[in-house]
Amino acid sequence: MRARNLGVVLTEVRRSGPVTRAALADATGLTKTTVSKLVGDLIAAGMVTETGTLRDGERGRPGTTLALSGGRVAALGLEINVDYLSACVVDLTLAVRLRYTQPVDNSSHTPVETLSHLGKIIHRAVDEARAAGLVIGGATLAVPGPVEGGLLHSAPNLGWRDVDVGGLLGTAPSTGAAPEAPRPPAAAGWGFPVEVDNEANLAALGELWFGSGRGDFLHVSGEIGIGAGLVIGGALFRGARGLAGELGHVVVFPGGPACRCGGRGCLEQYAGQEALLRAAGLDDPDELVRRLRDGDGRALRACERAGHALGVALTSATNLLDPGTIVLGGVFAPLFPWISGAAAATMADRLAAMRRAVPELAVSRLGGDAATLGAAGKVIQRIIADPVSHLAAAGAVPGPPAGRSPAGTVR
Amino acid sequence: MRARNLGVVLTEVRRSGPVTRAALADATGLTKTTVSKLVGDLIAAGMVTETGTLRDGERGRPGTTLALSGGRVAALGLEINVDYLSACVVDLTLAVRLRYTQPVDNSSHTPVETLSHLGKIIHRAVDEARAAGLVIGGATLAVPGPVEGGLLHSAPNLGWRDVDVGGLLGTAPSTGAAPEAPRPPAAAGWGFPVEVDNEANLAALGELWFGSGRGDFLHVSGEIGIGAGLVIGGALFRGARGLAGELGHVVVFPGGPACRCGGRGCLEQYAGQEALLRAAGLDDPDELVRRLRDGDGRALRACERAGHALGVALTSATNLLDPGTIVLGGVFAPLFPWISGAAAATMADRLAAMRRAVPELAVSRLGGDAATLGAAGKVIQRIIADPVSHLAAAGAVPGPPAGRSPAGTVR
Repeated sequence: MRARNLGVVLTEVRRSGPVTRAALADATGLTKTTVSKLVGDLIAAGMVTETGTLRDGERGRPGTTLALSGGRVAALGLEINVDYLSACVVDLTLAVRLRYTQPVDNSSHTPVETLSHLGKIIHRAVDEARAAGLVIGGATLAVPGPVEGGLLHSAPNLGWRDVDVGGLLGTAPSTGAAPEAPRPPAAAGWGFPVEVDNEANLAALGELWFGSGRGDFLHVSGEIGIGAGLVIGGALFRGARGLAGELGHVVVFPGGPACRCGGRGCLEQYAGQEALLRAAGLDDPDELVRRLRDGDGRALRACERAGHALGVALTSATNLLDPGTIVLGGVFAPLFPWISGAAAATMADRLAAMRRAVPELAVSRLGGDAATLGAAGKVIQRIIADPVSHLAAAGAVPGPPAGRSPAGTVR
Repeated sequence: MRARNLGVVLTEVRRSGPVTRAALADATGLTKTTVSKLVGDLIAAGMVTETGTLRDGERGRPGTTLALSGGRVAALGLEINVDYLSACVVDLTLAVRLRYTQPVDNSSHTPVETLSHLGKIIHRAVDEARAAGLVIGGATLAVPGPVEGGLLHSAPNLGWRDVDVGGLLGTAPSTGAAPEAPRPPAAAGWGFPVEVDNEANLAALGELWFGSGRGDFLHVSGEIGIGAGLVIGGALFRGARGLAGELGHVVVFPGGPACRCGGRGCLEQYAGQEALLRAAGLDDPDELVRRLRDGDGRALRACERAGHALGVALTSATNLLDPGTIVLGGVFAPLFPWISGAAAATMADRLAAMRRAVPELAVSRLGGDAATLGAAGKVIQRIIADPVSHLAAAGAVPGPPAGRSPAGTVR
């Protein structure tokens, strides 16, 4: 009961803070005595802080206001992608405290090498967070492929298959993609739990929590691979097995070039970062943007072609998923001015007659950071909904841990 | 409160019937006195019936068992498709009491003509239902195109655009596609409410309630147009505006033949009923099945080609939606033996490397009846969840109708 109520109070503080204890009692239906005790625990745990006083209109007595504290509890967001590793630290208020990206060609390394490299980045991030007084409550690792049963099933652009990414990182295997999984995996080597989830799903959640996504949208992660995450009514749509949103393997031309996924003519073969650079005769995405700014014909044609293919795939996606808007992220964010016109025109041609509104294309403000931010944000969401599990794991709170409270008393 | 509790009790009777009043009280948390009174109202309304006696194991006293009654309350399912009109009557137990399909080329008639024709079918169905002692509690009309704001926005294969189907049928405009719509539209000409919804959505619900669909599946409605409905966790996925599942306009070959939707190379142009018959050199679907049974080469090649296109579109759909299984319905049901092989092979080629399991193709046992059954089933679901609205509309119950009960007392 206490476990559940701590989550209820903390969620209400996030929703309506700065807020008084009296207002929290009104909003949650708990007694003022209970709220005061729970708030005391949350303050002691560094999750809530007193921010000032507010005169209560009806009763006339001033009350101390409370808000989430960014001072102690934090989360680590991690990403392995084909050509970089990245990490960020986000505190309980979703303020980004650290952001770090290292370009690496992970496709030329084994999973063990890459995860050992990522381990060094984690150590560095944890040390920096600790120096700022933060305690890492958990991590989520974004990987560029479908995650099933805790395994990265297939990341064709990395050349990885059935890799137990969580296990290699020194934690118990996790089940990031299972929507029904109620608890994070047990902490092992790092002292905090690490969950593994698909990069495109986490990028969509990053866009929802940190970016411009609101309510209903499809977030497209343009990297060497292309993924997408659909958010409907503020919730991620995962499909039956957590594998929805593989936009990169939507068929654009069925007889087109072979794709690393085993198919042919997939969107990635026309609009993935490698395909785009190849068409532009370049090997550096920054150089591509410079050429586009200079009006280079070959670069412009490469983007036009990629935009057209993206428009064909998004036509199919709109017909099937009916997203509200479409947010282009990853490398599509800096390329937006040169790629979105052809994509939007293709979609308008093919969709306008069948629906009142063709989904608008918007640019992500987060670009390539969306997945790492979403990964950290997912941990914060979990901690706020269930602070006791976190506190018990961190050894920070007296009283029985959640797992040992009598089952059946919470309805 | 009473309104809500009637729905709770009726839902529990459906879930666990035959069931005693005592067991209903245990399952719902209501007192036995309350349950007895509510059950009395439901029996008086013809929704529940006593079926026998059951000795209660613990107390040793026999109790009368209750179950849903199929004897009075029923729903009307209706469908306008390109080449037929159909209707069915389903009672509260989901038993099908009447099924009626009339081949008509609706694309050569105006909406007013078609709806007047459908009106005659409704009269006949209502009369037959009445003769069997049934009272129609509501109807849902399935239409072959996206429904937005109560209007059939576009049914390209009918040549209809922005048609107020519900209004033309003599009822208030309805909002079948809005998932948040809490109440059915007010009854007008027919004495019961008529809701309008998309054919493919209703066919998926028909498969869920009457067919072989369980839990997670994509139901494909193969007609002259092709639509699909995705059911995840037993609930229909509708997308942001209720327009999800337009499988027929997923792009198979971007430069392919022009489609009536305004696009090019849509799945319908390869696997829709007209395209299939044209490729086989025929104009009757039954004749196509006869030719296939006889091993006719042209008919077999037409199905092979359609199956391949279907496999390409279902590859894109699987990548985006991650359905559990895929149920082929409508004309694809009788054609399943000749179409599913090529579709499954195409999907296996393109999907097997990226996921543990490629969705299995299954045949619908309902075929072309799925949408009409789903349409009637939707009304029954609504009546069971909210029997008071139905009883108030039918004038069958004393006491204030739900809408006038004091707001705020129900939490």
